[in-house]
Amino acid sequence: MQIDEIDGTTRVFAILGDPIHLVRSPGVFNGMFSRAGINAVMVAVRVPAGELAKAWLGLRSLASIEGVIVTMPHKVEALGLVDHVGDNARLVGAINAARRNADGSWSGDMFDGEGCVTGLRNQGHAIAGRSVSVTGTGGAGSAIIVALARAGAARIRVHDVDTAKRDGLLDRVRGAFPAVAFALPAPDDPPVDIAINATPLGMRAGDPLPFDPALLPAATLVVDVITKPEITPLLERAAATGHRVHPGRHMYLGQANDIAAYFGALTPGAPA
Amino acid sequence: MQIDEIDGTTRVFAILGDPIHLVRSPGVFNGMFSRAGINAVMVAVRVPAGELAKAWLGLRSLASIEGVIVTMPHKVEALGLVDHVGDNARLVGAINAARRNADGSWSGDMFDGEGCVTGLRNQGHAIAGRSVSVTGTGGAGSAIIVALARAGAARIRVHDVDTAKRDGLLDRVRGAFPAVAFALPAPDDPPVDIAINATPLGMRAGDPLPFDPALLPAATLVVDVITKPEITPLLERAAATGHRVHPGRHMYLGQANDIAAYFGALTPGAPA
Repeated sequence: MQIDEIDGTTRVFAILGDPIHLVRSPGVFNGMFSRAGINAVMVAVRVPAGELAKAWLGLRSLASIEGVIVTMPHKVEALGLVDHVGDNARLVGAINAARRNADGSWSGDMFDGEGCVTGLRNQGHAIAGRSVSVTGTGGAGSAIIVALARAGAARIRVHDVDTAKRDGLLDRVRGAFPAVAFALPAPDDPPVDIAINATPLGMRAGDPLPFDPALLPAATLVVDVITKPEITPLLERAAATGHRVHPGRHMYLGQANDIAAYFGALTPGAPA
Repeated sequence: MQIDEIDGTTRVFAILGDPIHLVRSPGVFNGMFSRAGINAVMVAVRVPAGELAKAWLGLRSLASIEGVIVTMPHKVEALGLVDHVGDNARLVGAINAARRNADGSWSGDMFDGEGCVTGLRNQGHAIAGRSVSVTGTGGAGSAIIVALARAGAARIRVHDVDTAKRDGLLDRVRGAFPAVAFALPAPDDPPVDIAINATPLGMRAGDPLPFDPALLPAATLVVDVITKPEITPLLERAAATGHRVHPGRHMYLGQANDIAAYFGALTPGAPA
């Protein structure tokens, strides 16, 4: 669809975050809408840290906006702003998508984790029985840990410099998934099959690596959640040390269709 | 521009009103942006009557939205929500466009009236020295009356079933334009050169006509501000009774470029 075909009947969605200039959701969702022949558009809007609650009050009166994607730094705060929280989001403690219901209330849920698992599966990487490390327990990392547990990972090692945040998450997921071995980093911890970066490290020039791929076994798959740059310094280094790499776009594309279905804008499971 | 080219760097504008499904600003502005090679998009968002103030609070935190067009029923209320009111808007008592300034404050002004005069001129209808009737003294009607006075109309006859609203406007404009003869409807009032409908009558099926063109001299130009339907029942009847007609799109296109320039999105006076 050309932008001059947008009119008063075009359904409107937004992605809210800060910084906003790197987000790629509008292009991905608008491409999905166009290919499906749906008269809908997504735009990106910067909401500064600390201003989400005010923006949300306004959103309730911007009555034809049907749904929003919530990205950094708002995923945790947004959970407290919606009226109905999905099971996944409750466990993760954050949402990344919210929709307006017919009665005017808002529901929110977290799709980051399922997107990561779907993206891995789509590239031939099974989760069941595998050993995985996740670095970062913010919104994305928490969601990925929950989704890995749900997908049957045997062992999940959790890294975060914020040990209180890490331990809070572990308390929640250990109760929910007793069959999974959740581990803290330890010198004698066995090597993992999959090592996932779920921190923002790599988005800005000069960021340190979240971990050093050179210290991982050659068979370990190195995964990043960052979508821009497509090949982060972590993935570049991992490729240089002979590892297979899996960039963030797989996770991103893995969840886009699920979120569009959650918005009621696409049929669940329909090809995007 | 295709909608899947929208990304986090795309400048965002919105039109706010209710009902919203008939607005055509997104298509017109997006076409202007595309032709000028500007990475910007306008979407239409429904804001119910009485909820503009809440929506505006949110708009302040939706920090990358650079400007909004305000349409029915919000033009009068919006004047009280911006931080800086333009001269035209102050006289009219309403705004129809607002922009976010570099310091985060909002400025608003009224472009409906100048758009109407520009649209008439573009179709070869001069205003100076002419006698005009305007039916409706809401946001659009008031703006048109001010712009007609500014353009040198000799006589402006003002109709509104809400006589208090009509008389309030007349008090303001009589002081500002002492050379113009403002008149109330009277049995002995001379016929007008141009008869303008500035009420919403004609937007909904079954609306009564705002006035009967059959009672006007054959030379009177019949003008409507309504853009959808393009040919309103008033214009249809006027054409049937042998009058020249001037549909709302001329006024609409007359002001679009001015508003885009006000937003800082297009060069003032550049062809749209």
